Amino acid sequence: MTESIHIKEIVIEPLTRANFADFGDVIETESAKHFPINDGRVERYHDLASVQLGGENSRALINIFECNVANQFPYQLPLVERHPIGSQAFIPLTPIKFVVVVGKAGDHPQPEDLRAFESNGYQGINYHQGVWHMPLVADETGLRFLVVDRGGDGDNCDEEGYPDDQRIMIVRQPNQVNQSV
Amino acid sequence: MTESIHIKEIVIEPLTRANFADFGDVIETESAKHFPINDGRVERYHDLASVQLGGENSRALINIFECNVANQFPYQLPLVERHPIGSQAFIPLTPIKFVVVVGKAGDHPQPEDLRAFESNGYQGINYHQGVWHMPLVADETGLRFLVVDRGGDGDNCDEEGYPDDQRIMIVRQPNQVNQSV
Repeated sequence: MTESIHIKEIVIEPLTRANFADFGDVIETESAKHFPINDGRVERYHDLASVQLGGENSRALINIFECNVANQFPYQLPLVERHPIGSQAFIPLTPIKFVVVVGKAGDHPQPEDLRAFESNGYQGINYHQGVWHMPLVADETGLRFLVVDRGGDGDNCDEEGYPDDQRIMIVRQPNQVNQSV
Repeated sequence: MTESIHIKEIVIEPLTRANFADFGDVIETESAKHFPINDGRVERYHDLASVQLGGENSRALINIFECNVANQFPYQLPLVERHPIGSQAFIPLTPIKFVVVVGKAGDHPQPEDLRAFESNGYQGINYHQGVWHMPLVADETGLRFLVVDRGGDGDNCDEEGYPDDQRIMIVRQPNQVNQSV
């Protein structure tokens, strides 16, 4: 009996507002609307993300997420998750690069529908509600992110894995893993 | 004719949840409610601030504030401001200490009602709605803060100065300025 395993490589792209537009917001000062406040002592880069608070009795939460596990690439994507009734923003609390994997809101994404992006160290991101994404991974442990998401009534997290015969590998360069096993 | 100038020194205290409780939240992992998520790979320090969105058509904004002016202490407080229908959170985007000056929500605070606090480098703060505070100051230029505040209809900023014969000095140690001029 022959076992067939399908491997799909997702190559990491540099994160920009344009290539992330289908999934959410890039939180950065670059190309953002800005204006001086406090007699010019402070520049306000204004309204950088759409904070979406759906469902009943919703409110915005401010949290800190700390990563305990270091990841390396190629990285096998275990699953994707989504928050159907709220956005979720991640802003690194030190200048660090991180990788996100996303699929458009809607049905559970097929491997070929996923995209992977790496931030430049100064960017944060905001997943819009319903956008599928990889749980947080990072190259180092102890990294901290400021997270703005939704609290309130109702279940706001769905997780979906992939069958055992599908391996989704997040890679920095194409062809880092065997295409057949 | 004798001109009399009243000088009030406000001595900077270390910022803690306890001493800031009348004014808002300290955003830090220390002593915060937390729990593991994503199979233990991430620790979530949960719901660290009360995001208050009053008034009509309100929504949460995520912004970046960049400080263009360096300040030194003793620092003469020019004015205080408040946001009557929304909270405002400041979280530094690199580990930096900063000083806040606050007065309780209500009437324009008298100089003796003001308090000054300095963060430990890893803390953020959230002013509750209506709390009087100093416009942002910092020891260095180019410092960046993630700011979560309120957008929507209505005027959400009041500023109040102090008479020319009142000088409010923010100092690191008492008696850094002459008590009479």
